[in-house]
Amino acid sequence: MKTRAAVAFEAKKPLEIVELDLEGPKEGEVLVELMATGICHTDAYTLDGLDSEGIFPAVLGHEGAGIVRETGPGVKSVAPDDHVIPLYTPECRECKTCVSGKSNLCTSIRGTQGRGVMPDGTSRMRYKGETIYHYMGCSTFSNFVVLPEIAVAKIRKDAPFDKACYIGCGVTTGVGAVINTARVTPGSTVVVFGLGGIGLNVIQGARMAGADRIVGVDINDDKAGWGRRFGMTDFVNPARIDTDVVTHIVALTDGGADYSFDCTGNTEVMRQALECCHRGWGESIIIGVAEAGREIATRPFQLVTGRVWKGTAFGGAKGRTDVPEIVDWYMDGKIEIDPMITHVLSLEEINKGFDLMHAGASIRSVVVF
Amino acid sequence: MKTRAAVAFEAKKPLEIVELDLEGPKEGEVLVELMATGICHTDAYTLDGLDSEGIFPAVLGHEGAGIVRETGPGVKSVAPDDHVIPLYTPECRECKTCVSGKSNLCTSIRGTQGRGVMPDGTSRMRYKGETIYHYMGCSTFSNFVVLPEIAVAKIRKDAPFDKACYIGCGVTTGVGAVINTARVTPGSTVVVFGLGGIGLNVIQGARMAGADRIVGVDINDDKAGWGRRFGMTDFVNPARIDTDVVTHIVALTDGGADYSFDCTGNTEVMRQALECCHRGWGESIIIGVAEAGREIATRPFQLVTGRVWKGTAFGGAKGRTDVPEIVDWYMDGKIEIDPMITHVLSLEEINKGFDLMHAGASIRSVVVF
Repeated sequence: MKTRAAVAFEAKKPLEIVELDLEGPKEGEVLVELMATGICHTDAYTLDGLDSEGIFPAVLGHEGAGIVRETGPGVKSVAPDDHVIPLYTPECRECKTCVSGKSNLCTSIRGTQGRGVMPDGTSRMRYKGETIYHYMGCSTFSNFVVLPEIAVAKIRKDAPFDKACYIGCGVTTGVGAVINTARVTPGSTVVVFGLGGIGLNVIQGARMAGADRIVGVDINDDKAGWGRRFGMTDFVNPARIDTDVVTHIVALTDGGADYSFDCTGNTEVMRQALECCHRGWGESIIIGVAEAGREIATRPFQLVTGRVWKGTAFGGAKGRTDVPEIVDWYMDGKIEIDPMITHVLSLEEINKGFDLMHAGASIRSVVVF
Repeated sequence: MKTRAAVAFEAKKPLEIVELDLEGPKEGEVLVELMATGICHTDAYTLDGLDSEGIFPAVLGHEGAGIVRETGPGVKSVAPDDHVIPLYTPECRECKTCVSGKSNLCTSIRGTQGRGVMPDGTSRMRYKGETIYHYMGCSTFSNFVVLPEIAVAKIRKDAPFDKACYIGCGVTTGVGAVINTARVTPGSTVVVFGLGGIGLNVIQGARMAGADRIVGVDINDDKAGWGRRFGMTDFVNPARIDTDVVTHIVALTDGGADYSFDCTGNTEVMRQALECCHRGWGESIIIGVAEAGREIATRPFQLVTGRVWKGTAFGGAKGRTDVPEIVDWYMDGKIEIDPMITHVLSLEEINKGFDLMHAGASIRSVVVF
């Protein structure tokens, strides 16, 4: 069959909208019609050539929502007409990691996913006979995609696609980091570094978890209003205080954060996020993806005196299990998504979404097919 | 009154055995007759002038056991004839940290303890009219000492002093790191870097906690026998393998450690201890004290993919609550101490204990009064 898709033929070039040849689902695979997809910083990171493991030509995109149109042999957990969110972190429920119950980092198809192909080692997409690679096991910048069954989360049918797609990455990453990784408890003091799309979702996750104090930190004053919109109680602009940001936050929070989150990807900020944690028990969670080669550092004394340094990927969420629940939270009004979708675009306008992101003019742009 | 004591008049000089003037206990304080004291690397660290906050002249020592001889006004939790272990990490049960239940790092007398004085801001010890400072709130290299009531753990009377004293630091630090900080579960894979006195106690803590696999790592082959003596199942000498130690351990343990412990104080080893942890859930605990100014570092990817970096002080033990229980474990045979006490010395021989430690010839030297 044919599908419209935005293809990244090479790094640092705009995406091109073309028609691809798409092979149907093989055993254990499903064909999904994407109805909407978000544009995430990770897509830009790869498109800008910063990801040393980036493969081209590829269909980027990993934050989508759509409808199952066809299933391959052996598929049992979903059927045509089911609404689904593609999962760049699958959940096979059979690998060592899945059965451990201690991590969401399913390893069953990690090798092939990293090489831009399906679990059988081949791509389902071609353009003029040439192989087009999958991306993060999703490739949601295509109207139709083939996905492994273990890489789709079945969700309720009344959730709007143009909002639910954001749960495919940004919402789950931020809210999940609070709920699954940090396990923030009611009454906690939470500090969030970086008030972009992830940071705002951390803030609303902390609000949902009952945090008393939610401090947002950003060098852009314009973010303060956004933070407050989702539950931030205090705003700190490091450029506008007299002391260093750690000293300032420790004083502001009577000893430091119970939980802090880095949503910047800046390794210096990651250190500040750790060191502003409360002596004895404060935990800092790294969400942001750092530039290749950068390292985090601190004095071991910070850990010996009780601070804990953690990280999270996809918010610690087990996709097929947890993503449907987050969709419920959205539909029940426990978390918000609508105000974060600042721009809705057609597939033909997708490059504009990247421009808006680079200009800091959007929280999230969503493409509807 | 008078007391015999080994005094550190200045850094990098042998201790001198002299008779000090000792003032009796004030309100909330107790007089303890020390019966035995261990000699720990931390004492050597201070005596060697490596501790930038070291104060002289002082009576060092922080790993003792003795008998309460007198109590000051208001003391309720102990009485004369009670057997006790002095606590360099007190437990007031009233400060923010104690009531949090989340940390053992009681803050109630931290300020004065760090300045070498009792909570009222003065020392109880003098030599020829000159103030002699307390050390780590303990000063167990004196036959008699005055301690805050909140800094003594009451223990059973049938525990031998020359063994119980080791619970005042080394045993609790190692075993506690396993039980309180890491909370090692049965069946776990544990990796221990550095098989000195702390490392051996981590090993026996892991054995008590039911670990299946206990890997010891040391550059000294002579430590292998010691490790096996306390439950180590595998020994790795980084100098005798072809690959880097992280790769070697990850292969040896089918993916990495569930829990790893640094007992070396070397920041490069701390990094190896983190990076040999299992993707998804491995936790690394820093026990060793690093040289001033040294930092730990890693790629944030290590944390984002599920490893956790922690530290521990005094094994996360709440002294008055947990130390008596560890004494029970020793008396019940759940942990061993006797074989670790390699040398028993008189107070006059105390400098020999430091020599043995520096030569790597002892696991633990104990001074009996």
